Amino acid sequence: MTVYNYMSFLTDYGLEDGFVAACHGVAARIAPTAKVIDITHLVQPGDVRKGAAVMAQTVGFLPPAVHVAVVDPGVGTARRAIAVAAGGSILVGPDNGLLSWAISALGGPEMAIQLTNGEMWLNPVSATFHGRDIFMPVAAHLAAGAELSTAGEQIAVADLVALPAPTSRLHDGEAEGEVMSVDRFGNVQLSIPASDAGRLGIGIGSAVVVRCGRRQLTVPYLDTFAAGAPGEIVAFTDSAGLISLAINAGDAAQQLGLPPGAHVRLSASVN
Amino acid sequence: MTVYNYMSFLTDYGLEDGFVAACHGVAARIAPTAKVIDITHLVQPGDVRKGAAVMAQTVGFLPPAVHVAVVDPGVGTARRAIAVAAGGSILVGPDNGLLSWAISALGGPEMAIQLTNGEMWLNPVSATFHGRDIFMPVAAHLAAGAELSTAGEQIAVADLVALPAPTSRLHDGEAEGEVMSVDRFGNVQLSIPASDAGRLGIGIGSAVVVRCGRRQLTVPYLDTFAAGAPGEIVAFTDSAGLISLAINAGDAAQQLGLPPGAHVRLSASVN
Amino acid sequence: MTVYNYMSFLTDYGLEDGFVAACHGVAARIAPTAKVIDITHLVQPGDVRKGAAVMAQTVGFLPPAVHVAVVDPGVGTARRAIAVAAGGSILVGPDNGLLSWAISALGGPEMAIQLTNGEMWLNPVSATFHGRDIFMPVAAHLAAGAELSTAGEQIAVADLVALPAPTSRLHDGEAEGEVMSVDRFGNVQLSIPASDAGRLGIGIGSAVVVRCGRRQLTVPYLDTFAAGAPGEIVAFTDSAGLISLAINAGDAAQQLGLPPGAHVRLSASVN
Repeated sequence: MTVYNYMSFLTDYGLEDGFVAACHGVAARIAPTAKVIDITHLVQPGDVRKGAAVMAQTVGFLPPAVHVAVVDPGVGTARRAIAVAAGGSILVGPDNGLLSWAISALGGPEMAIQLTNGEMWLNPVSATFHGRDIFMPVAAHLAAGAELSTAGEQIAVADLVALPAPTSRLHDGEAEGEVMSVDRFGNVQLSIPASDAGRLGIGIGSAVVVRCGRRQLTVPYLDTFAAGAPGEIVAFTDSAGLISLAINAGDAAQQLGLPPGAHVRLSASVN
Repeated sequence: MTVYNYMSFLTDYGLEDGFVAACHGVAARIAPTAKVIDITHLVQPGDVRKGAAVMAQTVGFLPPAVHVAVVDPGVGTARRAIAVAAGGSILVGPDNGLLSWAISALGGPEMAIQLTNGEMWLNPVSATFHGRDIFMPVAAHLAAGAELSTAGEQIAVADLVALPAPTSRLHDGEAEGEVMSVDRFGNVQLSIPASDAGRLGIGIGSAVVVRCGRRQLTVPYLDTFAAGAPGEIVAFTDSAGLISLAINAGDAAQQLGLPPGAHVRLSASVN
Repeated sequence: MTVYNYMSFLTDYGLEDGFVAACHGVAARIAPTAKVIDITHLVQPGDVRKGAAVMAQTVGFLPPAVHVAVVDPGVGTARRAIAVAAGGSILVGPDNGLLSWAISALGGPEMAIQLTNGEMWLNPVSATFHGRDIFMPVAAHLAAGAELSTAGEQIAVADLVALPAPTSRLHDGEAEGEVMSVDRFGNVQLSIPASDAGRLGIGIGSAVVVRCGRRQLTVPYLDTFAAGAPGEIVAFTDSAGLISLAINAGDAAQQLGLPPGAHVRLSASVN
């Protein structure tokens, strides 16, 4: 029997209503000794991709846990509810790709269960609040020591819905990728790993050509955004190991007009 | 002596200042073993009705607890500070109706105390931050095992300020109610219980006529908003057992122009 | 060996990403028995002064703790990382003044350490996320019982970066100060302590002349904002012991056009 001291919780429920607290209450009743670490509840409603990215970049820093994530625009429809073992943790949520990047970050799926054991759910189950009525109670039972296999029927890990990985490829001396996410500071995180910069001959102090749409600009590749002059656009390796664009004391996403999903190409400046 | 392992906390303090944390600190000093579940701190300033609705729809999913709620536009004036026993929990806050719907949801008031025992308060007490100086310290003492009766003088439960219950009535083949709340997804929760739909002959798959102001529209009554086509307005039973209007992947409140308090009438379509 | 049961945490990381949760995870792995009280994570990006003010007004209500604060526009540059003992607590963060007002509120610095012991950090350390990689792991080791002196090299407390204290002075029958902060309710907190009101002969019920820029208005000095008529501007002693301006059920900062830093003068009305 594995007991988890921690759970984590990510949703798009917002913080203005009692939705998150109701789930915390359900967890407290079933697994009173498990601590719940809130990842975020401010994913834009239905933005599965953003939820997946935040999960994937966070779980590696959390203790082994039952991770619950609910960004679930298909709640109450035929989409499956799942629990997946990976890297010493269990991930619980809808089978819509939300968990897929975090599962990869934890080393890949070891076992997947479709949640069909209604005895682990609240009774009655609402049609629209499976976070409270299914995902959290199942997760809390698992945290309290229930075997994963008792939560439902085993399904093939190959059948789990996976989000397409963010595109990133190296060709013709260019790294091509897309905007993964924009954070609160306006920093633009690209899907291009810092190791690709090295392969292109880009190092600290290099000049990098950034192409997005019809625009092209040349920026320095620095240790950190704070090494740039105020107002200067810089490229740097961010805390997730990805190349990011930022403006020291400014909002790069706004100034560059680069929303999540926008295509960007990088190359070493030849001047 | 009853010791509570949990407290809950709802305010309109916002999350940008240290107000909520100061209260958490006060609780930790007095009742170090009690865990505090935050319900929300983003009630619009002074919106007692919204705070009451969130409390009432959440407390049933929390463990037995000392529930502290502070939406208190009359802080420092003659309004009473109270603690009320209900359904195995204790509710603490201003006597302005904020607690009244949650008390009802927990089965009604069993005993009410006006908080007059200043020995349970912080010293000094500010005129404007009773959450930190009165409500939370009293609640923490109660959580730590102090008898409710020691917090002050018993008052008649019939004298507690109660918010008028949201209107909802059935007549002439119509269910008449009002908008209870609008959530982050733009879903419009009505004060009309799902059981009233049944009495009107409305079941899953029925067409429902919605009248608000001069507008009238006919929408399907479905299991869940996600069963609607993208962009389609649907009615469904929400997770609180109330009829709600939603748009799959859209914002119904915005599209229908229905703020909290707006009057709405529902009937079965006769076509 | 001192073990701290509590940590506190203040940043400008926002709540939309996983930054705060990653730090919570790091703390949980290193100091599993320490509880983390979040002060706020919604300081405007880089607003060191606001972070310092919130810290200073909150720490006195928290239990003894390792307080971690990260508003750090200079992350990755030459600014020092520090841990400072004060009043039974330890404060950890960048040496940019963020901690300085809280240190004063706790009685002044007793010992200061520059964080140079990399064995207490995560490995690798990113250039841009020292909250996760340096400040929080060091703080968690200190909470778990590591001696402060083992975190790095002792530095002179006199060399710590300190924010200039908010100006406030009494002269010619006037108290002159500035706007310390504006809270969610639009209340305008001045840097003028309530004791200065007394020295000017201003008491409850007095009329106070408020001068800001070319404007002048006379308002009553009341127990609390709620004692004012709806819409009336009043002065009162706020929960931090400072004079504040508010409008009962209104937004004084907006109506008076008084942002943080604005200069204000108060005097007793002679009429």
